[in-house]
Amino acid sequence: MPNRSCIIRLSRYKNALNRLKTLNFVRVFSDNLADAAGVTAAQVRKDFSLFGITGNRRGGYKVDELSVQLNKVLGKDRVQEFVVVGMGNIGKALFHYPGLGKSGIKIAAGFDIDPTKYDRDATPPVLPLEEFADFLAAHQIKFGVIAVPDYAAQQVLELMLSAGVKGVLNFAPICLKARTGCVVNNINLETELENVIYFVNASNNKK
Amino acid sequence: MPNRSCIIRLSRYKNALNRLKTLNFVRVFSDNLADAAGVTAAQVRKDFSLFGITGNRRGGYKVDELSVQLNKVLGKDRVQEFVVVGMGNIGKALFHYPGLGKSGIKIAAGFDIDPTKYDRDATPPVLPLEEFADFLAAHQIKFGVIAVPDYAAQQVLELMLSAGVKGVLNFAPICLKARTGCVVNNINLETELENVIYFVNASNNKK
Repeated sequence: MPNRSCIIRLSRYKNALNRLKTLNFVRVFSDNLADAAGVTAAQVRKDFSLFGITGNRRGGYKVDELSVQLNKVLGKDRVQEFVVVGMGNIGKALFHYPGLGKSGIKIAAGFDIDPTKYDRDATPPVLPLEEFADFLAAHQIKFGVIAVPDYAAQQVLELMLSAGVKGVLNFAPICLKARTGCVVNNINLETELENVIYFVNASNNKK
Repeated sequence: MPNRSCIIRLSRYKNALNRLKTLNFVRVFSDNLADAAGVTAAQVRKDFSLFGITGNRRGGYKVDELSVQLNKVLGKDRVQEFVVVGMGNIGKALFHYPGLGKSGIKIAAGFDIDPTKYDRDATPPVLPLEEFADFLAAHQIKFGVIAVPDYAAQQVLELMLSAGVKGVLNFAPICLKARTGCVVNNINLETELENVIYFVNASNNKK
């Protein structure tokens, strides 16, 4: 099975393709996609071959066809709905993230426990957390984002699991674990900053 | 050289250790850290061995010693200063991220081009982008976060490079490339959502 890094690269190729489409490009080569994603052309071809995507013998792909194929792999051939729990800065960032809708991801609602954040009439609405289970049952949503403080994250995960969520992206600074039947990806902003620090220091030490 | 995933795991072990310390734990086993980070105990020992970190023969580590060793590897034995360009939701999330200071990461300042966001007296201050180069020169800062819209990201990267920044974490939804002498990590929230979608669909297709 392809790993996380491979799927992140596919997303990057797909994003690059979308930009090329707006520039009216008809063909694209693995070198072009490699440049856009910051990898080698061999890596691009290897990633594509995992999904049975092949170009012509000169290594070219038709932008439209390739775009359809990548969208299918990434589940973007239909709209995927997410809910966001926690309407702090990260929750808001997702609400206002540009281009999500265009790329087939819909934020269906946000949830919080702070009444000053509720906004039933907004699109998407922000609702009280008590309505979470009912909302998910009514809308058959299987993806959730956790953007709450660390002490609340485990409880929100349990709530999501009991409401039938199958995939979770967790921004709370605690590493939540996947369960049978539920994928959990963790993003920790501090960890990401540490990662940059490490690789800068490591490249200095090499010199 | 250890890869990105390995360093992310080290950050997770370090975070778990910090939690154990607050609970007055003195010893920890690779199984404990494996549980906390969602990996196997063998993976923990393999990661540590890359950095010459060894436990006793029963696989135990002293919490204090291990913490010092991991902090050193992660460059957390001294304060690392970051600047943030773009004071939208993601920039604000970093400003208010809990525990960064405690763990040796300091956000020294934010920058924006919108005068309504300037706040010279805040800690950290939010300054006009025109002051970026002078501020970095005065404070000898080598780490930057890009949290601007996609169309402005490349220009901000150039500004950072010319101001001597050596490590960049980019949240703009465009994949920026590393340069000689500068590490660039990209985080794209849409890509992260797509990743969850892919792995949920992939596990459904297996059934």
